[in-house]
Amino acid sequence: MITTDILIIGAGPTGLFTVFEAGLLKLRCHLIDALPQAGGQCSEIYPKKPIYDIPAYPEILAGDLTDKLLEQIKQFEPGFTLGERAETIEKQEDGSFVVTTNKGTQHKAPIVAIAGGLGSFEPRKPPIPQIEKFEDKGVEYMIREPELYRDKDVVISGGGDSALDWSIFLTDVAKSVTLIHRRNEFRGALDSVEKVQELKNSGKINLITPAEVVDIVGESKLTGVVVKQKDKENFILEADHFIPLFGLSPKLGPIANWGLEIEKNAIKVNNALDYQTNIPGIYAIGDVNTYPGKLKLILCGFHEATLMCQSAYQRIFPNKKYVMKYTTVGGVDGFDGTRKEAPKAVIKSID
Amino acid sequence: MITTDILIIGAGPTGLFTVFEAGLLKLRCHLIDALPQAGGQCSEIYPKKPIYDIPAYPEILAGDLTDKLLEQIKQFEPGFTLGERAETIEKQEDGSFVVTTNKGTQHKAPIVAIAGGLGSFEPRKPPIPQIEKFEDKGVEYMIREPELYRDKDVVISGGGDSALDWSIFLTDVAKSVTLIHRRNEFRGALDSVEKVQELKNSGKINLITPAEVVDIVGESKLTGVVVKQKDKENFILEADHFIPLFGLSPKLGPIANWGLEIEKNAIKVNNALDYQTNIPGIYAIGDVNTYPGKLKLILCGFHEATLMCQSAYQRIFPNKKYVMKYTTVGGVDGFDGTRKEAPKAVIKSID
Ligand SMILES: Cc1cc2nc3c(=O)[nH]c(=O)nc-3n(C[C@H](O)[C@H](O)[C@H](O)COP(=O)(O)OP(=O)(O)OC[C@H]3O[C@@H](n4cnc5c(N)ncnc54)[C@H](O)[C@@H]3O)c2cc1C
Ligand SMILES: Cc1cc2nc3c(=O)[nH]c(=O)nc-3n(C[C@H](O)[C@H](O)[C@H](O)COP(=O)(O)OP(=O)(O)OC[C@H]3O[C@@H](n4cnc5c(N)ncnc54)[C@H](O)[C@@H]3O)c2cc1C
Repeated sequence: MITTDILIIGAGPTGLFTVFEAGLLKLRCHLIDALPQAGGQCSEIYPKKPIYDIPAYPEILAGDLTDKLLEQIKQFEPGFTLGERAETIEKQEDGSFVVTTNKGTQHKAPIVAIAGGLGSFEPRKPPIPQIEKFEDKGVEYMIREPELYRDKDVVISGGGDSALDWSIFLTDVAKSVTLIHRRNEFRGALDSVEKVQELKNSGKINLITPAEVVDIVGESKLTGVVVKQKDKENFILEADHFIPLFGLSPKLGPIANWGLEIEKNAIKVNNALDYQTNIPGIYAIGDVNTYPGKLKLILCGFHEATLMCQSAYQRIFPNKKYVMKYTTVGGVDGFDGTRKEAPKAVIKSID
Repeated sequence: MITTDILIIGAGPTGLFTVFEAGLLKLRCHLIDALPQAGGQCSEIYPKKPIYDIPAYPEILAGDLTDKLLEQIKQFEPGFTLGERAETIEKQEDGSFVVTTNKGTQHKAPIVAIAGGLGSFEPRKPPIPQIEKFEDKGVEYMIREPELYRDKDVVISGGGDSALDWSIFLTDVAKSVTLIHRRNEFRGALDSVEKVQELKNSGKINLITPAEVVDIVGESKLTGVVVKQKDKENFILEADHFIPLFGLSPKLGPIANWGLEIEKNAIKVNNALDYQTNIPGIYAIGDVNTYPGKLKLILCGFHEATLMCQSAYQRIFPNKKYVMKYTTVGGVDGFDGTRKEAPKAVIKSID
């Protein structure tokens, strides 16, 4: 059982910044995310695109925003359960909550902050019979651990940025990389498309288009895929892994059944006070919540997280009075023993 | 009469970011500030100190934060009335407001956003008889336009960062710089104190300590000051300008009499919706407002400004439906004709 002060569901920008604000209050955080990496929509959907409305960043790539947030919270040593979906929540006798993932990992905390964005990112699966049977037995819909593919024969299918970028990346790791797409045209960043062309020319990526994977071969685990290519007879391609990258789409999913008030696919919160839900001790912040005037913007999630942490502090320590200190004045003391602080003014005579 | 869509009182971080959010909605802004420069507390009180809780900035100097905000809003060509205090407000028959400054400058807008922070920064004046008579006639409490001092004899008094930094700066501009302080010890950034020591040694700053300016000499304008130095007889120092830099302290001031609901020296707003005050069309955002759970933090002002602009838009265009577009997706079109936009994905075949 993983225990923490604030259990955060969702490691998007809102969840990440919560760690910082909680840390200032000496509260520890643990994050759960269905994705294999932190950053939520920013890292999953548009890591290489610029955002223009992050305050004081005239321009920042979504991926860099994630990196900056990770750097900012490092001092507070957040824990991560990645690649798992928070599935159930149970209130304990002591008032705390236990959240269990689809893989059975249990987390316990007095406060739960749902920063689930548009929901847990779930893969779009290709319509291949019995594909579920091979999941984690050679079929993966996202790449959690690139080392898994070292010296393996890998087949990727898809025609977007993920398919392009992972094909490029895995040429350095896998024994062979085959990219299959049902059209000749790919849709993605120009440099990614050009790089794949180059790797194809040099024989490092085996490109099969227009084509589709229509079946899987194997017993207890995948040993190959059946490819249907235009104007050809279906053929078997031997492989250790098949990675269909057809995009991930967010689904509010299990959280919708937690007894929370839901409106327009989002969780209703008290925006007049602290972004708490109808269940005391459970907050909802960022894209996942709704209230009058709500805007699904990153900068709003930051504010919501900050106010939420103050309220969480009061719940955890009902008898302590917290006096806020500006970071500039009080400095920042990490749980890792590091301290950030402004250079002090000196008092010095001039003679 | 200056006319605009949103008249912002206060050019601190909150007021500045409002320009950006308004600009996305194609609304123009004009800012009034009592200080001679933008940035509010950040530029007036602690420009060289780091802030650690600006989201995605593990560390940023308060002065750099101001610069980044100015860069971000440049596209939207904000107007500025600096060095003037908003004094009165009058509602017009057409529902708009006219705000007049202490110098008589008039501004008209359908929406007023008060982003006045802790209030208008007012100088602490030294207890010198008739000092008021010489204000703007040789006596200035803040430096609006350094060129005013070119080839002039300048006397600065004070022992903190402002006195140190302006003394250093003006050695390159003025004919002579005299720094007077009632103690030998100065309190400021180490490098500033050391620099003044160096300039004193090289004869570029004339240092008189421990000493005080106790009177002013002059008829229609200042021609000198009377200095009282320890163990000496009072003497007259000829000068064109006397700049007492004893700090600025914020005072809510005239805004307190505008008929707004005030609580704990701040303006009450509806945080459950849009940060509007009890007077429709007047909003209060950033440090200047109060509501249950309010935190006087920069990141909160950013959120409040953003929600406020949406509400302002609805007031100005009651019949238009605004559909928010992410900056990443829609790009940013400045009033200056520039456009920021993300590189588009390409659709390109690989063969
Ligand atoms: C193309 C695009 C462009 C955008 N441009 C901008 C812009 O310019 N400016 C701007 O402010 N915003 C922009 N946005 C929106 C911005 O990305 C979101 O507002 C932001 O990501 C919300 O952050 P969040 O942390 O609240 O949620 P998210 O980023 O959605 O993160 C939520 C995370 O929670 C996880 N999760 C949810 N439920 C569960 C569960 N049950 N178990 C485990 N994990 C779960 C998800 O997997 C996800 O990783 C854009 C969005 C897109 C798609
Ligand atoms: C030493 C110090 C350290 C700090 N550290 C941090 C930190 O680490 N993190 C953080 O988030 N915050 C910090 N703060 C607080 C932060 O600076 C404020 O929250 C922020 O400046 C508020 O921004 P604002 O735009 O709302 O108001 P302000 O910055 O106060 O700006 C308001 C402006 O309005 C002007 N004004 C007011 N009334 C009038 C009028 N009638 N006419 C004309 N002009 C008027 C004022 O002159 C002023 O320039 C710190 C503050 C100080 C003093």
